[in-house]
Order: sequence, then structure tokens, then C-alpha cells
Amino acid sequence: MPYLEHRLTRRVLFYETDLAGIVHFSCYLRYMEEAEHALWRAAGLTIAPPDHSIGFPRVSVTCEYAAPLYFEDEFEVHVRIDKLGPRTIHYAHVLTRGTTKVATGTIITACVIPAPGQRPRASEIPPAIVARLRGDN
Amino acid sequence: MPYLEHRLTRRVLFYETDLAGIVHFSCYLRYMEEAEHALWRAAGLTIAPPDHSIGFPRVSVTCEYAAPLYFEDEFEVHVRIDKLGPRTIHYAHVLTRGTTKVATGTIITACVIPAPGQRPRASEIPPAIVARLRGDN
Amino acid sequence: MPYLEHRLTRRVLFYETDLAGIVHFSCYLRYMEEAEHALWRAAGLTIAPPDHSIGFPRVSVTCEYAAPLYFEDEFEVHVRIDKLGPRTIHYAHVLTRGTTKVATGTIITACVIPAPGQRPRASEIPPAIVARLRGDN
Amino acid sequence: MPYLEHRLTRRVLFYETDLAGIVHFSCYLRYMEEAEHALWRAAGLTIAPPDHSIGFPRVSVTCEYAAPLYFEDEFEVHVRIDKLGPRTIHYAHVLTRGTTKVATGTIITACVIPAPGQRPRASEIPPAIVARLRGDN
Repeated sequence: MPYLEHRLTRRVLFYETDLAGIVHFSCYLRYMEEAEHALWRAAGLTIAPPDHSIGFPRVSVTCEYAAPLYFEDEFEVHVRIDKLGPRTIHYAHVLTRGTTKVATGTIITACVIPAPGQRPRASEIPPAIVARLRGDN
Repeated sequence: MPYLEHRLTRRVLFYETDLAGIVHFSCYLRYMEEAEHALWRAAGLTIAPPDHSIGFPRVSVTCEYAAPLYFEDEFEVHVRIDKLGPRTIHYAHVLTRGTTKVATGTIITACVIPAPGQRPRASEIPPAIVARLRGDN
Repeated sequence: MPYLEHRLTRRVLFYETDLAGIVHFSCYLRYMEEAEHALWRAAGLTIAPPDHSIGFPRVSVTCEYAAPLYFEDEFEVHVRIDKLGPRTIHYAHVLTRGTTKVATGTIITACVIPAPGQRPRASEIPPAIVARLRGDN
Repeated sequence: MPYLEHRLTRRVLFYETDLAGIVHFSCYLRYMEEAEHALWRAAGLTIAPPDHSIGFPRVSVTCEYAAPLYFEDEFEVHVRIDKLGPRTIHYAHVLTRGTTKVATGTIITACVIPAPGQRPRASEIPPAIVARLRGDN
């Protein structure tokens, strides 16, 4: 079974709100990342192994805000892998609270091999990770 | 003199870094907002008056990441008003560290009149604010 | 049944880590607050009603750190109301990961009635809230 | 000249406020850390060298809140090294806005030598760092 999408349920925390009484717009990007990492865990993977042998920095993000989120709101983040390239992963996200669309967004990440004291080196995504995300046996 | 652009100098704080040793991608959006609010202050305005009489929630954001930022890096955020419409403001941002481009981004905000207990109502940007941003006398 | 204690299970998020590879110390205070708010929800209450009719700002906090938390660690926050005074609530927290003690902490909050445009006014905790927290019928 | 104290001037950022319209209590700990790191920079040091050869995790923190901080408030964080032990540093902080005391707090940190893949090892603070903080020539 492919792990190419995931649904995360989440509740708004107090410190995520701002003086306008709603969730600060930067937190939506964090919610999107949380759903991405939950997708990896569901596939038996971690985005950040303890040995720091691989990393997935962001290439670009977008977010369109449709409705505010309030303190203690329960909402859902649906994340889907839109494109699984040799060196990049394109994610598409939809945030909903009940039947209300809250936001849509995208994140593009690149695969890198960290090198202590140097800038990370771009790398192809390891086949074992691709296989897990695709749900191959 | 029009206050349609602004340069903010900033230093990376410890808690803005993550386990990859670089600034978390969501903080770039916060840096962009900081520059926007500094632009407003330079024009003699505040984005959030104490009486909550007006607000500027986000319609959409984008960010493209060009280079990582590290702890204690000094960097600059240049913000420019790209379009000042009757109800929305389009900002364009460039983040640089010395001669290195770190990121580019955009934020679109809409003007709203908060109403206690109700959803805020879309509104035209008050002429006094437009005049200040344009630097009219 | 009194709602004078609560256990919250939580997983460490990526953006809560810092360049030292562990959770930033300020996040422990946020975890403690999350458990406090979950205790209130379990008692059928909310710490921040939508009408802003009451508030619980912090008087003081303490935290002693016993062991680091790492990305994706699952941990537990146990919160207990140590003292329920007429105007203040004293919480005591213990954070654990499995059998490892991660941290202990305290939060003292005061009850206030917000007043638009003025500083909030100290107030006794409403009897209905005290009854809920005590689990009276 | 000893670098055993430092004053940091700071302005409240939008995303540091919460729905109560004031700075979230966890941010005060971040402000205190910012002043600590600025003290180190003033002494020609960095709390986190790029080679990760040393670290200063927190042992304990306390904060007492005296007055709220609001969006765009300018305030000052005064940090003072209260005790410079062989393995720990005790900091004492006072936050003020004009003549108003906003908060007082303390942070105790321990010196550790990180070891990849293992828990960091407690260590004496290197004499070169002690000399810099004391302002020895």
C-alpha cells in the first residue's frame, strides 16, 4: 500500500494564536510540515535520522489562507505527495475544519547529504526511501 | 517621500534554528512579516492599533529558499510594496546575507474591520493609511 | 470525579528542536501549558472562552531540566493542581519519556477579568470553574 | 573590563503575542536567552561555535511576571552573571519597559562537550571562556 498521502488531526494550541485572536499565518507552514513527517512515520521512515545521514531542506513553500483557525479548534491536515522526483519531493496540503476549507499549500523539498563543516550536497533520494513511500514490498 | 519599501537588519536567534543546524523554514515568513511591520512604523503607522479597529490577515504567502541561514548570521530583509490595491497589499521580499541571496518571498494581505464575536468584514484600506504609505503630505 | 490532574501524551515536533539537536528549553513551558489546557478541557472547561470574559495570565514559572528530548520522542506531561486558591491556581508538572524523568516544573496563574483598553482586573475564580475542576455535581 | 552583564534592547514582534493581546509567557525565556547570547558576543564569544565543540544546556529556569508586554513595546533585558562556577553559569535577568518592571528571571546552564551519537559529557568551562567573560587580558 503506497504511503503517498496522510491525514493528521490536530488541535490549535494557545501559543499558536496572536493578538488578532487567530492562528498566526506562519503556523500553517508548521502544520503542513507536521503532516509530512507523520506521513513518513506511517511509511516506517523518519525525515531526520539520529545519525544526520540525510536531510530534506525546503526549496519553496506556498500557502493560501481561506478561513481563520481559533484556539482549541480541531482541524485536519491532508498531505499528498504530488511528485516524487529523483532529487525532490513535491507535497500538496489541504487544511480543513469540519467541512470548512481553512487553507491549501505546497512544499517542495530536496534531498541532501549533510557534510560536517561544509554545505550539504544535493543527492538522489535513496531507493529504500522511495520504495517505502511507494509501499513496495 | 513614499514608504513603499524598507530594509530590516536582523540577527539569527538560537531558538530559530532546528536540528539541521539552520534556521527553520517557517521563520523566514516571520522575518518577512517583521520587515513589513517595520515599514509601517517607518511610515508612522502600526499594523495593529491597540483598539483593534483594523486588521490585515494574510491571503497568501510564498517563499523560495536559496541558501541556509545559521545561528548569529546577520542578514537583511528588503520589503517592497508591489501593489497597493483598494482592499489588498502585495509585498515582495528579498533576504540577503552580505552578497548572498538567502530567499525571496511574497505576502498578500487584505484589510478587514474586526467585529467582536463575528468574522471580520473585508474593507477598503483607509485613505489615511494609503496616504502615509505613499508619503503624501 | 475531580479533574485536578491530567496526563498528556505528545510527540516532539521538528521545529521544537534547535541546533544542539534537542528540544529548545522554552518549549518545555509550552508543553506544560498544553497539559494545563487539556486538564481544563477534560473538566468541560476552556481556559480562553471566545468572549474573552476571563483570563489566566502567568504569575511565575519554574522548570528543572533532567534529560533532553529528541525529535519524534514520545513523552508524557503529567499536570496536577497543587493549590486552588480563591484567585490563583498552582500547577505542578512532571515530564517523562518512558521511565526517564525529563523535567519538572511549576506554573502559577492568576484569574483576571479583561477590560478593553485597560489593564485586566484581578478577580476571584468563578465558583462554576472551581466546581468543575473539583468535579462537584 | 569584565563582560559579566549586558543590556539588550528589543521590540515585541507580532507573532510573540497571543489571543490575550499580550506576549506569551514562554517568550520571556527566549528574551532572557537572547540577552545571554548578546553578552557572550560582547565578550567576543559565541555560545554555539560552528564546530559544535561545546554546549550550554539549561539546568533550570525561573521567571516572575510583573507586567504584560504588548505588540511593538520597546523593552530592555538586563542580564548579569550571578555566579560563574567551574561547570555552571548562573544568570539573573530583569526585564523593564521604561521605568516599569516587566519580569525577573534566572537561568542556570551547565557546560557540556557534545559527543556524536552519545549523550553530551559534563565539562569544566574552558579557561579561555572564563577569561573572556571576566574581561582578563
